Amino acid sequence: MSEYRFLPHIRDPSAIKAFSHDELAELAQEMRHAICGQVAKSGGHLAPNLGVVELTIALHRVFDFSHDRLLFDVGHQCYPHKLLTGRFDMLPRLRQSEGMAGFPEPRESEYDLFSVGHAGTGISTAVGMARGDQLNGETDRNVVALVGDSSIVNGLAMEGLNNAGTLKRQFLVVLNDNGMSIGKPQGALAGYFDKIRISERYDSLKQRAHEVLKKLPAGQYMEELYHRFGEMTKAALAHQHLFEHFGLLCIGPIDGHDLPSLIEMLEEVKKIDHPVLLHVKTVKGKGFDFSSDDPTTFHSPKPFRREGCRVELKSGGRSFTAAYADAMADVMNRDDKVIAVTAGMPDGTGVADLIKKFPERALDVGIAEEHAVDMCAGMAKTGLKPFVTIYSTFLQRAVDQCFQEVALQGLPVRFCMDRAGLVGGDGAVHHGFMDVAMLRSLPGMTLMAAMDEANLVAALEFMRTHDAGPSALRYPRDEVPEPAPADEVAPFELGRATLLAEGADAAILAYGFPANHALVAREQLKTRGYSVAVYDARFAKPVDLELIRELVATGIPILTVEDHHENGGFGTCVIEACNEHGLPTQAIHRLGLPDKWIYQGGRGEQQRLAGIDAGGIARKLTEVLEAPARATATPIGDRARPTPALNRKLGA
Amino acid sequence: MSEYRFLPHIRDPSAIKAFSHDELAELAQEMRHAICGQVAKSGGHLAPNLGVVELTIALHRVFDFSHDRLLFDVGHQCYPHKLLTGRFDMLPRLRQSEGMAGFPEPRESEYDLFSVGHAGTGISTAVGMARGDQLNGETDRNVVALVGDSSIVNGLAMEGLNNAGTLKRQFLVVLNDNGMSIGKPQGALAGYFDKIRISERYDSLKQRAHEVLKKLPAGQYMEELYHRFGEMTKAALAHQHLFEHFGLLCIGPIDGHDLPSLIEMLEEVKKIDHPVLLHVKTVKGKGFDFSSDDPTTFHSPKPFRREGCRVELKSGGRSFTAAYADAMADVMNRDDKVIAVTAGMPDGTGVADLIKKFPERALDVGIAEEHAVDMCAGMAKTGLKPFVTIYSTFLQRAVDQCFQEVALQGLPVRFCMDRAGLVGGDGAVHHGFMDVAMLRSLPGMTLMAAMDEANLVAALEFMRTHDAGPSALRYPRDEVPEPAPADEVAPFELGRATLLAEGADAAILAYGFPANHALVAREQLKTRGYSVAVYDARFAKPVDLELIRELVATGIPILTVEDHHENGGFGTCVIEACNEHGLPTQAIHRLGLPDKWIYQGGRGEQQRLAGIDAGGIARKLTEVLEAPARATATPIGDRARPTPALNRKLGA
Repeated sequence: MSEYRFLPHIRDPSAIKAFSHDELAELAQEMRHAICGQVAKSGGHLAPNLGVVELTIALHRVFDFSHDRLLFDVGHQCYPHKLLTGRFDMLPRLRQSEGMAGFPEPRESEYDLFSVGHAGTGISTAVGMARGDQLNGETDRNVVALVGDSSIVNGLAMEGLNNAGTLKRQFLVVLNDNGMSIGKPQGALAGYFDKIRISERYDSLKQRAHEVLKKLPAGQYMEELYHRFGEMTKAALAHQHLFEHFGLLCIGPIDGHDLPSLIEMLEEVKKIDHPVLLHVKTVKGKGFDFSSDDPTTFHSPKPFRREGCRVELKSGGRSFTAAYADAMADVMNRDDKVIAVTAGMPDGTGVADLIKKFPERALDVGIAEEHAVDMCAGMAKTGLKPFVTIYSTFLQRAVDQCFQEVALQGLPVRFCMDRAGLVGGDGAVHHGFMDVAMLRSLPGMTLMAAMDEANLVAALEFMRTHDAGPSALRYPRDEVPEPAPADEVAPFELGRATLLAEGADAAILAYGFPANHALVAREQLKTRGYSVAVYDARFAKPVDLELIRELVATGIPILTVEDHHENGGFGTCVIEACNEHGLPTQAIHRLGLPDKWIYQGGRGEQQRLAGIDAGGIARKLTEVLEAPARATATPIGDRARPTPALNRKLGA
Repeated sequence: MSEYRFLPHIRDPSAIKAFSHDELAELAQEMRHAICGQVAKSGGHLAPNLGVVELTIALHRVFDFSHDRLLFDVGHQCYPHKLLTGRFDMLPRLRQSEGMAGFPEPRESEYDLFSVGHAGTGISTAVGMARGDQLNGETDRNVVALVGDSSIVNGLAMEGLNNAGTLKRQFLVVLNDNGMSIGKPQGALAGYFDKIRISERYDSLKQRAHEVLKKLPAGQYMEELYHRFGEMTKAALAHQHLFEHFGLLCIGPIDGHDLPSLIEMLEEVKKIDHPVLLHVKTVKGKGFDFSSDDPTTFHSPKPFRREGCRVELKSGGRSFTAAYADAMADVMNRDDKVIAVTAGMPDGTGVADLIKKFPERALDVGIAEEHAVDMCAGMAKTGLKPFVTIYSTFLQRAVDQCFQEVALQGLPVRFCMDRAGLVGGDGAVHHGFMDVAMLRSLPGMTLMAAMDEANLVAALEFMRTHDAGPSALRYPRDEVPEPAPADEVAPFELGRATLLAEGADAAILAYGFPANHALVAREQLKTRGYSVAVYDARFAKPVDLELIRELVATGIPILTVEDHHENGGFGTCVIEACNEHGLPTQAIHRLGLPDKWIYQGGRGEQQRLAGIDAGGIARKLTEVLEAPARATATPIGDRARPTPALNRKLGA
């Protein structure tokens, strides 16, 4: 700890109120080093945090967020904020269980108002708190939303701005414009931001300030206010700024790394009792050449090693994302009707590779999941085969589009849901825990999961030719199992599971990835003398009714396993099918994510916690096999081997 | 039919290509009379359609939508389009089964590309089709999206515009600006539209056209194009238009009822191979004083009678919406922390009444469901008790917000889901068929339904004091049952069902409104000699496990009934609970909406079709009671009367 002069002693932001500018600058350096050092060790969000160090210091210097409101958008830029709010000690366990969450987390500190990780929410929650404070008579609380330039053009943020413009009180949106999304920013507005970065110099605008104010919805009032503006505010009024149309007084752009100016400007705008947008230019990855030169790679890197000027990212195994990118490239090579679309996550989804290989047929629309899905619906209507790749958790943004513009039209849009299931360090804000539940009520929807690379390849090929309606494939934020159980597996057939291993005492019906754990559990159970069949269900809608019927008929215990909420997930599909067809369900036991939040930690650790890892599966099945017969249980029939009756190819 | 000179003879839009301006004007009159006459008889969307008669004629005159693409946003303004595309014969069965849908419907005509009813989708699907046509090499297809001024500020539409601005081809957004949403438009941008309606005169803009074009992202190119612009386009270029920032060439506003000018302008802009926004001013309800003077009342009226100047709306029974408005007013009177919020549906949700009574504590944020939910999350964070009232189908827009900003934070936002279940004439685009499925995976969420006014009142009171987390209440687009079964019912207790009528041979466990049908079915079954108990489940999450356990123990058939999809609905909650607690499920039978689309028609008819009306319930239970015992069924236990064991107050 001795390497830091200030950081270990900051218990709350009041500590920096009396710092000199030189001390603040030194503090900024310490924060950058602490963050970079930790992310190098554990991985985490780097470049976004390096970019907002001065901005965060200035905000805490000027406002008192023990009383004022600070709302983060996305939230992966909260590390400096956490360091200033007494959490330096937690940094060494960044993104680990019982450690510091990688996103704002109210369970950690009252300075964190919302645990967030999705984009575009900050302005709306800030509007809610602004209105709430006002209705509660607490009008002395200032409200600040910190939003990035890619988030602010998300539909939700735009809706929030439109409503914010009607507020009649202090309300500050700080636009952290680093000219970067997680990837390159998309859409026409990105070009607009570029333009004002280059052409609008605030020195020349001062004389036009009166004119600007007249044009605002609250023109007369603002003109009166003008005389109370500080000189910096007057000078920095931005004429013809996009968000002026939304009723906000727009100021900037100003330099987001010039701490004294930031502080002075924030002191001035704090006093304006009208919605204000302060446009701040920052450099993503600021402070280290390697990160500012390549902010995409260092947006959220894995652990890395720095030696002098060389930075080396530690390489992990082959991810499902990488496997997906390769498989899709193959699909796109073979079928020129296939289109690949992502919504602001080109690197995270692997679509970046496809954009390089197929610039005409692969695109990123920015953080706009609703638009991405609807655009794909339009493309499908013209006969193309769009594959839209969105993290499971972000597809929650487009449920209504999946319903109306896709499923109701019967359009074969293909949904590839990366990071389905538990996601590890990102925690509760990013788990893909409800995709089955939210999509399975849609008539005509086909739901699938891929347990490994070979199945991912087979599933994508199935989707390519499945034109009867929409289909959705889930796969986890994980490495594909190595060595691969099989280079090639039997083709996906609608609603057919696949047998992975035979057994006579119980059957595990796993949905996608957990089938790998089930195979390990099977070995563990073998040592206890049990012979367990393992199936990869592959489909949650429709389920393999024939298989279920046969398994139920044997009377042996059946365990469904999934990396999805137990409410409305794959296991539910199975018991629903049984119920619908008059089959008893008592031999069926369901394992899935519990009805409670699972916070950041290792993905393996989270699976253990939920009991869906190999150990959990073996434990559960042992309990079932060794429990006294249920009082009302269906009598167990002949212990027939369930598998020979099934004419299925072995997946392995 | 003889009253119309043109309408009966228009088989497709080519019919009007050779019409003189006078003939087109006469056609417009005929269309207005036909639409008004039909809506007076059957109800339907009136004012929105009257407003776009000339605009629709002009679009079909200039474009060939058998080849070009016309995408509607919301779509309730499609009647003139339907009359011009050969569907005059279907008009007498407007919004009825086998008749003309009230929204665009591809099953009716190839001129309808998407069946829509939700706002903000048109630009995104149009972008998709524009990109699709281009990739397919069909570059001669023009693409037009018709969007209203309240829809275009919806988040999805903004995302679509941002992406549209990057297109390098013809792409026309027609902004139908009638200064009206379904209710009054909300948000700062509404004020912006007002301003440009008043202050921007295109005569004065012509000389600035070059300057405008230079500022566009494609400035140089557009300047070159300028010489090919028609005079009208040059004159009508709108400088500093909001959507110019999105990369669109903005033209207008122009008069949307001046047919010759509309046609001339569309002919000109059709040739521009760059994204264009044509801002058209229309008068909602145009053509009849009663509708243009009160476009909110006549947005989508029930049948009405016109006698000379007097227009009288036929009054129906008391709606759940009216009951809700009264109950909420009472809640708000008693508890000043309660806030009422709606997203663009003040009249449809009854919140309009609350805004009148509590202007400080009730508000409409416009068609922005995502923002509405997040704003409420912010309010809840300040200690207020926000009730956000959104149609079940529109809450699909805010699933992600229900997850992250509400449920994950444990915030007690109250969701009031009007029009849950089948909705009648609006058809498939508006059924609230998946609210349980999409919300039940959220930890801490409480899900409820109200069967009648007394239960609605009791449920709202429960929600008022339920601060432990979010809660959601569903109630249908229907009249409250009269005479009321009870003025007052037992208070809602978390997870407790209520007994409505005793019985010994079977039990019906209905979720909310269908409990009314169950009571009728019970009488029908009585005539067949069966004694059936009826419960209103009230809660889907958590379900009444104690009751379920007791019912299952009796061994009698149990029928769950709900006005929700069978996949993942209330019945599923029941069998999941059984499965989790080792109870057999074979005595449980589920009735709900089938896994297929149900199109427009009477709500009663739709309930019959789905088999969830009294007749369907009685039929299903008769089948169950009279079926030979299932081969593998759990042995039926003693035919004990299930109800006396339960210490529940009678709801009636």
